[in-house]
Amino acid sequence: MGGIAAAAILVLLSSVVAPTLANDPDMLQDVCVADSTSGVKVNGFACKDAANITAENFFFAGISKPGMTNTTMGSVVTGANIEKIPGLNTLGVSMGRIDFAPGGLNPPHTHPRATEMVFVLYGELDVGFLTTSNKFISKHIKSGETFVFPRGLVHFQKNNGENLLL
Amino acid sequence: MGGIAAAAILVLLSSVVAPTLANDPDMLQDVCVADSTSGVKVNGFACKDAANITAENFFFAGISKPGMTNTTMGSVVTGANIEKIPGLNTLGVSMGRIDFAPGGLNPPHTHPRATEMVFVLYGELDVGFLTTSNKFISKHIKSGETFVFPRGLVHFQKNNGENLLL
Amino acid sequence: MGGIAAAAILVLLSSVVAPTLANDPDMLQDVCVADSTSGVKVNGFACKDAANITAENFFFAGISKPGMTNTTMGSVVTGANIEKIPGLNTLGVSMGRIDFAPGGLNPPHTHPRATEMVFVLYGELDVGFLTTSNKFISKHIKSGETFVFPRGLVHFQKNNGENLLL
Amino acid sequence: MGGIAAAAILVLLSSVVAPTLANDPDMLQDVCVADSTSGVKVNGFACKDAANITAENFFFAGISKPGMTNTTMGSVVTGANIEKIPGLNTLGVSMGRIDFAPGGLNPPHTHPRATEMVFVLYGELDVGFLTTSNKFISKHIKSGETFVFPRGLVHFQKNNGENLLL
Amino acid sequence: MGGIAAAAILVLLSSVVAPTLANDPDMLQDVCVADSTSGVKVNGFACKDAANITAENFFFAGISKPGMTNTTMGSVVTGANIEKIPGLNTLGVSMGRIDFAPGGLNPPHTHPRATEMVFVLYGELDVGFLTTSNKFISKHIKSGETFVFPRGLVHFQKNNGENLLL
Amino acid sequence: MGGIAAAAILVLLSSVVAPTLANDPDMLQDVCVADSTSGVKVNGFACKDAANITAENFFFAGISKPGMTNTTMGSVVTGANIEKIPGLNTLGVSMGRIDFAPGGLNPPHTHPRATEMVFVLYGELDVGFLTTSNKFISKHIKSGETFVFPRGLVHFQKNNGENLLL
Repeated sequence: MGGIAAAAILVLLSSVVAPTLANDPDMLQDVCVADSTSGVKVNGFACKDAANITAENFFFAGISKPGMTNTTMGSVVTGANIEKIPGLNTLGVSMGRIDFAPGGLNPPHTHPRATEMVFVLYGELDVGFLTTSNKFISKHIKSGETFVFPRGLVHFQKNNGENLLL
Repeated sequence: MGGIAAAAILVLLSSVVAPTLANDPDMLQDVCVADSTSGVKVNGFACKDAANITAENFFFAGISKPGMTNTTMGSVVTGANIEKIPGLNTLGVSMGRIDFAPGGLNPPHTHPRATEMVFVLYGELDVGFLTTSNKFISKHIKSGETFVFPRGLVHFQKNNGENLLL
Repeated sequence: MGGIAAAAILVLLSSVVAPTLANDPDMLQDVCVADSTSGVKVNGFACKDAANITAENFFFAGISKPGMTNTTMGSVVTGANIEKIPGLNTLGVSMGRIDFAPGGLNPPHTHPRATEMVFVLYGELDVGFLTTSNKFISKHIKSGETFVFPRGLVHFQKNNGENLLL
Repeated sequence: MGGIAAAAILVLLSSVVAPTLANDPDMLQDVCVADSTSGVKVNGFACKDAANITAENFFFAGISKPGMTNTTMGSVVTGANIEKIPGLNTLGVSMGRIDFAPGGLNPPHTHPRATEMVFVLYGELDVGFLTTSNKFISKHIKSGETFVFPRGLVHFQKNNGENLLL
Repeated sequence: MGGIAAAAILVLLSSVVAPTLANDPDMLQDVCVADSTSGVKVNGFACKDAANITAENFFFAGISKPGMTNTTMGSVVTGANIEKIPGLNTLGVSMGRIDFAPGGLNPPHTHPRATEMVFVLYGELDVGFLTTSNKFISKHIKSGETFVFPRGLVHFQKNNGENLLL
Repeated sequence: MGGIAAAAILVLLSSVVAPTLANDPDMLQDVCVADSTSGVKVNGFACKDAANITAENFFFAGISKPGMTNTTMGSVVTGANIEKIPGLNTLGVSMGRIDFAPGGLNPPHTHPRATEMVFVLYGELDVGFLTTSNKFISKHIKSGETFVFPRGLVHFQKNNGENLLL
């Protein structure tokens, strides 16, 4: 990819959730692994029987590979969320990977219930968020660096890099 | 480091927190950047004046570098938490990096208020957690893979790798 | 209604609720519209399938009309709550209208989980609440004015007005 | 205002807040009236001494009057929030009034921590919100009707009315 | 006390509280022991410096002794709450002891933010609560038995026992 | 039991729970009594129909009797939790009784979601907890005394008493 800027970040979303488990004697469940086969719709997901929980329910390998960035915006999100890791149900956190083509943009958006924290795996990005009093907070961040987007605020990431040899 | 196993993971902690901001007219604060100079001790930290908030309050570069693993346990944690990123105050998430020497162990412990999610940057690890009903959930995970340790449960990570050439 | 006092207030109840949605990738639900046909009883209500959500689920026209105040207490509550607006499920807020005959009383009661905020549409009211340390906070409020009854505290509203021509 | 459309709505915001009061013996405070003179900045506000609390702290008369709508967008918000009603501190609810000129728009925005519920006092409005899966929910609402905008979702209100005689 | 009924219960109050600690790296505080000397008023209490915390902050001996029941109602509450055990601050639980003379009554009241659970130490009691839909739930309970009063509901306890020899 | 130490404590667990009931008009449920016959698994339990709730759902007599302490550790827990008192579902509190043989130990463990508060019914105990910064807080407590173990921290109780005549 000589002469072409690229970037990838690891994205962490941490929601406000409340454990709805009523109390904590030792026999009750610690986790509520999402049961995608349940016909019951609650806010979140119904739980698998605790007897059927395995390590696979807490594991995901899919963000090791770069996503295809030939999209309209030049960015692509690969989620490591509750749909991929059912054990995340009720725990209030998820992860993702975003790959950016040169010039690629993850356009302004909000996560209504989540704070986002990014770690730059490769390349460099321009990132920013806007407070509700219209203060604009932005920064240029590089590989190995982290940045925080507070819950519910409009934010973006853009790969303005040029001539990065990978 | 020929013939020597090493590993590093990115660690994410997501706590249950509640925004203590009372309501949401547009003029009120969206963030409560920790003011480490405040003499007032509350659970968490008092806030900086909103007029003094900068992008640096939401940024940290310190987890780009490997930590020194010549410790008793052969592992070292580098935090990207509220002490390094004051903008994390009240947002309920933090990040960290753990480096492991060959045989290095992050011994069994709990995070009383946080779910932990790891991403393996380099190497391989044996990881596991124990439910309060004494079910042991464990797995061998590799570079690019993720694993979840639910809130409050005892967990560990160990680098059992051998002969990894870095 | 010459020479007769009457009053109507708009009542807002705001409960402490916690979104039980576990995390916030873009494909998960933002709302949990109550499915009154579900046989499953949870604390609150099970959700309708997101594909079936319409604007009607977030709408109610029923508090435009005065309620009949010929009751024992001389007051009547018309709710714009989850039973009328299923989209309110999990959102922690509801609205209502209370109409008062002359001398009508909404007798002392508590909302165990909700703060109440009133707006006087027509007429005047004597309102008050009692703290748990027995401090009595009361006021005479008029059309266009608002008053707050903090969560869980005993409170009342009474129409002591006379000779109001409507 | 012959031949001119106008509209006013009552706006209610209900935030997720958590009472930070630790327990409930009868001598502890039920409310935390904001002390605007306190130099201590916490997320929300420090409290007035309970001995100094009065009914005025829970009262506001300012939304009885129409706001001036000769703004860029043709709409104006008058808040009945914690800045006007210090007793709302920690209670997670606020109110407001929005006045619209003919064609006036309250442009798309989000309340990161609050559900909004509106009641149309006068006139008619086009209202809508967008889910994070890009489903658009909208409706034309009239005097006496209510509509709900779920927490954190982008929403707007617009006065498209014409020839309304007031 | 030949021929005289008496009773004592242990009372537990469990509030909804939210830990306001933002995240959970190992160096941050686990507890926020109330600092009664702090001039700062927050909802709850400011914290003592963690270096000054002792076991005494989590201990109370005062409910071992019966309270004097020669009150108007014939009952007396001895609290083991945050005022006696500053370490309870932010933890959302408290304990108490109530002693009842023969015929003694703990009259109907609510705890706006707390569930109450009682354990009868000596004697017998008539207890009950009222739901917001006016369903009355009551029972006669004896030494060694427990009963639950859900959060925010009106409840009472009364010693109707006779001829109990202690 | 001449010359033999024994001890019993009453144990209270208070969890962080969030009422998932969305709002608070008077017709909605105040309680969600666990329906153990429901096939639906949620985090916590589905609710019984409110029409079938009785006082028995909030009552338990089983902790009046000492548990058998001839166990490996010399201690035995008798729970008064949601499995015995279904009315505790969603209320975030439970109770228990622990009986200790001479030398009996309730070994170090955590309650991931609960603060524990103990009341010594008979005998004496050595109790303690460890903060996440490895500060050890311990005390010798006796009949009628109480002690608090903050949420999520490792703690234990041990009966080191000797020669206690019961």
